[in-house]
Amino acid sequence: MRDVTIQNVRVIDLRFPTSRESIGSDAVNKDPDYSAAYCILETDAGVEGHGLTFTLGRGTDLCVSALNYLATFIKGRSLHSLTENMCAFSRTLTDESQFRWLGPEKGVIQLATAALINAVWDLYAKVEGKPLWRLLAEMEPEQIVSAIDFRYIDDALSRDEALEHLRVSRIGMEARIEQLTRDGYQAYTTSAGWFGFSDEKIQRLCREGLAEGWTHFKLKVGGDPVDDLRRGRIVREEIGWQNKLMLDANQKWSVAEAIERTLRFKELDVWWMEEPTSPDDILGHARIRREVAPIRIATGEHAHNRVMFKQMLQAGSIDVCQIDSCRVGGVNENLAIILMAAKFGVPVCPHAGGVGLCEYVQHLSAFDYLRGSMQLENRVIEYVDHLHEHFVHPVRIVRGRYQMPEAPGYSIEVRPESLERYSFPGGRAWQ
Amino acid sequence: MRDVTIQNVRVIDLRFPTSRESIGSDAVNKDPDYSAAYCILETDAGVEGHGLTFTLGRGTDLCVSALNYLATFIKGRSLHSLTENMCAFSRTLTDESQFRWLGPEKGVIQLATAALINAVWDLYAKVEGKPLWRLLAEMEPEQIVSAIDFRYIDDALSRDEALEHLRVSRIGMEARIEQLTRDGYQAYTTSAGWFGFSDEKIQRLCREGLAEGWTHFKLKVGGDPVDDLRRGRIVREEIGWQNKLMLDANQKWSVAEAIERTLRFKELDVWWMEEPTSPDDILGHARIRREVAPIRIATGEHAHNRVMFKQMLQAGSIDVCQIDSCRVGGVNENLAIILMAAKFGVPVCPHAGGVGLCEYVQHLSAFDYLRGSMQLENRVIEYVDHLHEHFVHPVRIVRGRYQMPEAPGYSIEVRPESLERYSFPGGRAWQ
Repeated sequence: MRDVTIQNVRVIDLRFPTSRESIGSDAVNKDPDYSAAYCILETDAGVEGHGLTFTLGRGTDLCVSALNYLATFIKGRSLHSLTENMCAFSRTLTDESQFRWLGPEKGVIQLATAALINAVWDLYAKVEGKPLWRLLAEMEPEQIVSAIDFRYIDDALSRDEALEHLRVSRIGMEARIEQLTRDGYQAYTTSAGWFGFSDEKIQRLCREGLAEGWTHFKLKVGGDPVDDLRRGRIVREEIGWQNKLMLDANQKWSVAEAIERTLRFKELDVWWMEEPTSPDDILGHARIRREVAPIRIATGEHAHNRVMFKQMLQAGSIDVCQIDSCRVGGVNENLAIILMAAKFGVPVCPHAGGVGLCEYVQHLSAFDYLRGSMQLENRVIEYVDHLHEHFVHPVRIVRGRYQMPEAPGYSIEVRPESLERYSFPGGRAWQ
Repeated sequence: MRDVTIQNVRVIDLRFPTSRESIGSDAVNKDPDYSAAYCILETDAGVEGHGLTFTLGRGTDLCVSALNYLATFIKGRSLHSLTENMCAFSRTLTDESQFRWLGPEKGVIQLATAALINAVWDLYAKVEGKPLWRLLAEMEPEQIVSAIDFRYIDDALSRDEALEHLRVSRIGMEARIEQLTRDGYQAYTTSAGWFGFSDEKIQRLCREGLAEGWTHFKLKVGGDPVDDLRRGRIVREEIGWQNKLMLDANQKWSVAEAIERTLRFKELDVWWMEEPTSPDDILGHARIRREVAPIRIATGEHAHNRVMFKQMLQAGSIDVCQIDSCRVGGVNENLAIILMAAKFGVPVCPHAGGVGLCEYVQHLSAFDYLRGSMQLENRVIEYVDHLHEHFVHPVRIVRGRYQMPEAPGYSIEVRPESLERYSFPGGRAWQ
């Protein structure tokens, strides 16, 4: 690979006023303005690395500040000096001796770390001339493993186990690539069931979704129990019993309440219940899962690092592992989580309700199929249908399936005119 | 109580250049500049509420920004409107609909929340004319319980259980107050054993500590195994077998490594091993604890909220519950943790290695004795001997015991000249 030097990092506070239409609303997040702390790695070769971390509006400036500071660790460095030991690079960010106290590996500084690490991978893939999923899939086992920080997880997955798995998963990969690029990857839609939508709107959106070929629908719950059930029945009636219905409570309940409330939905043949309680409650999820079976339990979008995912897998907390491309420390840490989930036999179904998350996670799910679990059964990627027009290479969905991206990079580059219009607070959208 | 109105909140970025002398250094935190995001609630009655959240230098500005935003929720409000339902007040901060995404209840925004909530308690205690510990101890059970957010913890401690416990713990409280104000509260010193200190310095500081009446000494480990053991032997030799020796690895190891490394210290009769691995690893700590018994396991200073403490108690992860006054959402959340620890029979020994933490936590340990566990056995408060001169009411230590503070408030008020001198980056200390 030719080498390039990162000369400058531009950081942008990007906010879309989505709260004006209740887009993205749920039982806990009432009025999100889908936003991002966004960074551009400018190089001496013209090529740029783009990355973002997803936020909900207020507080994006905190991630921007953190990102500006962390960016000082890559300014002036060659891409090769970062990619030759991605784990060491990520530790320069996560182990910064004073900054670390603000986490460690959680919250604002972890979100900022994700944006920066994702931008490095975007740059890496562009320099290699490949979409990220293909870059990852074609890496040698040693290269992949060298990107992973095994500290704190080697009791669940050792470096040697990961290496062995990655050697095995090279076999048959070309056939899986062929299948994936031909058939795409199964998606599900969250766009029909936001919390702030009326019954009529949900009904209409379900019908439109079916007409577009959707087969998996998610509904936001966690409000009044009678309302929740009525809304659930509406969706089930519209989509029929042959399609899948998932529910999402967005952390609304305590443990006992979550069990009681989840069991009330039994008649709806729920495919999974998502975020029934606190995202930190590993043991709580395990208990909920035991007591509501066969309803499956999903969580992960707020699990802040690989140590949390490790424990959810060890404790039997989840049936569905919902990785997030920004919540943990970027691509590196998601590789660790995907390989752990593969070992524990828990399907990865990424969270993507936000701006740019669909663009990101399609690459991670592809890696999971190609080098991780090597399976597609019970695996779906979330899809929400807004804000894609701002991306240079937006996701492509055909009949409810993601079509594999072909452009080099991590698909996260936002169009320059959108960066300008939605920059906060100076952009025109905020005047 | 007379009511006062909070008219303004001043927020200060306060940093002490402690890294110049290796003070506070350990295996992970190599060069801390003990710092704080500091706030002053200014009222219409002249009385002020002070609060801070402890940080290590860089990144304090993130907490300052978060604090400036959260402060908008109390400007113009009467103190009574906050204290009449402290749980509701704390939720206005922790559930802020867009900000919440940056946590929830963890990292930068949780640290900022702590500073603000602690400042409200400081103001409350000052208006009542009592030190905080006495204000808390003399509260009605209903009042205490109304300050606690039971969401996500009621599977471990219900509101009714807490109420019942607090009714019982009123009995005999006057005698316990008398004892505490007479005898003080057992402390331990961390000041002899920082990571960056030479063998000679450790030796000298141990001797000085003994001469001052200290009986419990903590040593930082997590470096080279041979060095660690040599340093441990030096301390043990100096303090003798009748005194207590604790070790602190500051999260340095993975799980298996932590077990192996901890067992190497067996000959030293270690009273506890602190932070052997990731602070997020509830199950990891439980396994370490099982495998190194009878060496006791301590952690908590990086546990970011009550849900994490709940699980550590449920999973049997800890022998020692190390609450932190700033890491979780302030006094309110620590009340919850203290009551849970009492129920599970795990002693609370607060973390206080930082600036202002000793001043804070003496109040929390007093509450634990007066209304929580009602016990002193195996309970000690950390003490570090620097930066106290900056406080208006610094802690008083006599023969290794905290003397109960008598001045109204939470003892956290920093002297105006120190606020000015150490404000960052404008203060004289940083010129």
